[in-house]
Order: sequence, then C-alpha cells, then structure tokens
Amino acid sequence: MYGIIATWRMAFEGITAGREILEDGGFAGDAIENAIREVEDFEFYKSVGYGGLPNEDMEVELDAAYMDGTTLDIGAVAAIKDYANPISIARRLSKEKVNNLLVAEGAERFAHKEGFQRKNMLTERAKIHYYNRIKEIKEQEIKPYSGHDTVGMVGLDKRGNMIAATSTSGLFMKKKGRVGDSPISGSGFYVDSKVGGASATGLGEDLMKGCISYEIVRLMKEGHHPQEACEIAVNRLDKELKERRGKSGDLSLIAMNNKGEWGVATNIEGFSFVVTTEHQEPIIYLAKNINGKCIHEKANSEWLDNYMKTRTAPLVRR
Amino acid sequence: MYGIIATWRMAFEGITAGREILEDGGFAGDAIENAIREVEDFEFYKSVGYGGLPNEDMEVELDAAYMDGTTLDIGAVAAIKDYANPISIARRLSKEKVNNLLVAEGAERFAHKEGFQRKNMLTERAKIHYYNRIKEIKEQEIKPYSGHDTVGMVGLDKRGNMIAATSTSGLFMKKKGRVGDSPISGSGFYVDSKVGGASATGLGEDLMKGCISYEIVRLMKEGHHPQEACEIAVNRLDKELKERRGKSGDLSLIAMNNKGEWGVATNIEGFSFVVTTEHQEPIIYLAKNINGKCIHEKANSEWLDNYMKTRTAPLVRR
Repeated sequence: MYGIIATWRMAFEGITAGREILEDGGFAGDAIENAIREVEDFEFYKSVGYGGLPNEDMEVELDAAYMDGTTLDIGAVAAIKDYANPISIARRLSKEKVNNLLVAEGAERFAHKEGFQRKNMLTERAKIHYYNRIKEIKEQEIKPYSGHDTVGMVGLDKRGNMIAATSTSGLFMKKKGRVGDSPISGSGFYVDSKVGGASATGLGEDLMKGCISYEIVRLMKEGHHPQEACEIAVNRLDKELKERRGKSGDLSLIAMNNKGEWGVATNIEGFSFVVTTEHQEPIIYLAKNINGKCIHEKANSEWLDNYMKTRTAPLVRR
Repeated sequence: MYGIIATWRMAFEGITAGREILEDGGFAGDAIENAIREVEDFEFYKSVGYGGLPNEDMEVELDAAYMDGTTLDIGAVAAIKDYANPISIARRLSKEKVNNLLVAEGAERFAHKEGFQRKNMLTERAKIHYYNRIKEIKEQEIKPYSGHDTVGMVGLDKRGNMIAATSTSGLFMKKKGRVGDSPISGSGFYVDSKVGGASATGLGEDLMKGCISYEIVRLMKEGHHPQEACEIAVNRLDKELKERRGKSGDLSLIAMNNKGEWGVATNIEGFSFVVTTEHQEPIIYLAKNINGKCIHEKANSEWLDNYMKTRTAPLVRR
C-alpha cells in the first residue's frame, strides 16, 4: 500500500506528482518533499513559500519541518527568510546528529553553507495584501489573518516508510520571530512508521496547547482508526479550550496509518484536504464538523473553479 | 497542598525562595518565575542564563518557556540573546493572544519594547570554557557538551494552579539558531492543572522525538502515579531510540501531579533534582536507572560540597 494525505486544496498538484514517485516504488521522503516544494513554489498560495504573506514588518518568515517515521529523524526551520524551499532545508537538517531545529539567521546561515539558493520570497501580490491590510487595521486591533493555512502532509511508501512534513509562512501580520505549530514536533506534525502520522493546520498557538499531532498518532497506536483518532483529539482539544479560555482557534487535522487508512477532523466549516492511495487517484474533499462527527464530501467543480479564480484574481492596492 | 519539583541541584536556592511564596498562599506562577530567575542570575551555572555557555560563534543564545496549567497559556522564547531573564519574557508572552513563541531578533525586539533590560550574558568564565573547548575540539568532531542541563520546574499552589517552566542556554557549541526541547510545548514541558505537569532535561533533539513531557502528563491523566508515568515514558522512549537509532541521548524527567505527588526518571547516572512540598523542606536527590526502575537517594554532604566546589573552582584558559 502507499498513499498521501494533505491539508488544503493547494496540495493537489504536489500530491499528484508525489503519487507517481510512490507508485514507482520511491521513498515517501522524496514524494513528500517534492509535493511540498510544488506548493512552496506556486506564488498564488499566500500562506506557504513564495507569495506567502509577510509579518508585520513586511518580511516573509517561513517555518517548515520534516520527520521520518522509521528513524524518528526530525529536521525543522523556523522564521527563516529568503529561501525558496524551507521543506528541503528541513529535510537536510533531519540528517544532522544534533542542531536539527534552527531558527532565523542561524537557519539562513546553515542553508547558505549547504548551497541552497537565496530567493526574495516577497511577491508584489503579497505586498498589495500587506498594504491593504495595513489600511484595514488602522481602525482595529491586529488580529491573525483567518487564512493561516499550513500545508501539512503524511505519506506512506510501498516499503512501509512514513514521512510527515509541513511548510508555512504562518500568520499574516505576525510579529517578527513568531513561530507557530508547524515546525514543532508533536504539535504541527508527528509520525511513527509502526503506527501512522498526523499533521495540523489552524491557529498554531492553540494547536500547541494539545500536542495534537502526537496525540492522534498515539490514539492510532491504541487501535483507533485514523478517522476516530482525529475526531477524538480535535473534539477534546476544542472542548478544553472553550471550557478554559472561552473559545478555541481553528483546528484541522489529517492522519494516515501504515495501512493507508486515513482520517480528518476539523472544528471549522469547509476545511479542504487531498488524499490519494494505491487504489485512489488524488481527490479533493471538503470537511466540516457536525456535532463532533467530521463529515467530508468531494469538492464539486463549482467550488474548484471558484477556488482557483479567487486565488489568481487581479489584486489592487486600495 | 503545594509543591515544586525541579531538574538539577542548581534549582535548590530558587526552590527554597519559591516555597515561601507558595506557603504564603501565593500563585504558582510567581513562585516558579522567581525560582527560575535565581538560577538564571547565578553566574556559576553554566547551562542557564547568565554564565550560560555560548554557541559556536561565542554567543549566548537562550531558550525559555512558561505554561499555565489552568488556562493552558503558553509563552516561550528561543535563541534570544542579551536579556537577563528569559523566563520573565516567556511569562510575559504567555499573556498575549497570539505570537506566544518568539525567536531570535523578534524575541529581543519584543523584550525591548516591553521594557526588559539588555544585559551582556557572556561571562569571562564562559569565554574561558569556550576557548578551552575550541582547543580541545581541534582534534575531534564537535559533539554536544555533556552538561546540557536545562532547569525545568513544575509547581502547584494552594489553590490548585499548576505551572511548568524551563530555562536554558542549550547545547554548548551549538549552531547559531539551534533550538532544543526546552521552549517546545509537549517536549520540554507540559502542564494541566486538572492532572499535573512534567519537564525534561537532556538531549533536546531526542526528547522531541517522543513529546515526552506531554506523554507523562497523559499517563498521569490515565491514573498513573507520577513516578510510574515518568518511568514508563522514559523507558519507552529510550528503548525506541536504541532500537531505531542504535543509541539514545540523555533523557531525564521530573513530574508532579495536582495532589503534590511527584516522580522522576532518567536514563543516566547521577541525575540530580530538587523537590519540596507542604510537608517537606527542599531536598536534593540523586537519581539513577536500575533495570528500568528509577532509584533516588538524598545527596550526601560530600556530594553537595563537591558540587559547588567544582562549579566555582578557578578556571584557567589553556
């Protein structure tokens, strides 16, 4: 069996390419790295890689992580600027004996020494979003942008290796140096090839309060189907946050076990995700939470057309 | 009931002061922040705060975290330079709505705006350690310094509030921007006032592979005594790491539940820790792992004398 599951519609093209690697018997690490690079490179996705929205200083600071579920190797970068593919730097770091999580200038210096090419990651389009947002927030408190959409993936290859990985530009208008859950083991991602893997997207500050990716893998280890594991973990954390803090941020989780079974849960409306297995070409689904059960259905062509139209629509500075 | 448990002998003086706050009915957050500040301020502890050993560029980069087990608020800084008390910045960050984990320059800028005073954290003594180490490693590969000793604490106050917190200068000779487990929720620390809390010290890169502080709190939630929870989690992670990677880094964990019961486990010889409760003045213990059981005994006066003597002994540049 092989398969990939990923957060958000934006993962579709990458997963389609990654699936071919898996079908040919390739390593899950190669499939996932390639899939995430595609998302990082596509400039119209404004929450990952090139074209990602900047922090309050109009700098694009990126977070990414890579975990090998067989060796438990982890590599991650946080608050790194001006490199095209943070996922590849994270994967490279996973091979180091120590110093596996590097942040800010230290991460950039490592990447430079390893021969990664610098690239100005701030697009004209992202700048227009920034200036428009500045104008908007003159009348209000700075709040996290609603679309804090991390691409997170879990992959399984024919030999049973599992990989989890993430990449994001984080919260739009975040403070310089802010790090969310995406590069944080157990929160943004976790994988164990003996069991399965999970990855998160939503409000990093809240996802971290529950170590939710680790928790989902643990529930799968106890024997729960990935769908059950995701629902239990998301509903529990959502409930705890509401009880203790009055509200819960967005929490959306994907998971796959080492049999290629998968699951998803969310506490928002319209969380999109993509999944493929040996028996199924990549499909885009939309998920929502109805009384604690996560219902998902295939995205229809109207939704799909509208998705790409809104992302690529001309943008004017107000 | 009230109590504090902390990693390493160095926590003793801080805990003694923190205990008074708890005895007077004070908030666990005040007790723990004050206790950790004492450790940060004492220049002869070379793995925390002032006097902490530098990275490979001879810069002291510090990590710290603060978590409130009642609200689940988390604040943390990583790779921050030139502030005396990272723990206080972490606590301050825990009050923000978002942007709770800040790294490097972004963390420094936040601290500055909040009125924290800059302080050159590199001591003459730390510089001598650095130069001596440079000389040593001319003949060998750079390896993490054996004394990667994070101060981690869990506190419980009379009203049942629990706090977990950490502070460290991380691996001696680490790469610039390297972040270990200490500021990472679930790995370096975790606490839930409904259950208990845990904190870790050792090789951050390995501690992160098991989300071990979260796991210990979870085991306590399932009904395990803190001692059992620590032993189960440490033995399991140690075994997994050895099985998959051939070896396991140092893993030492402390925990306390919301009844003031406590536990400790380690995979090394001679892990020291400090504990106090309503019924017990602060005591320094030494722990070791014998066939999976963690045995601890009170440190004798010879060990205690020797401890402070070696830390404050004159140091010469070789």
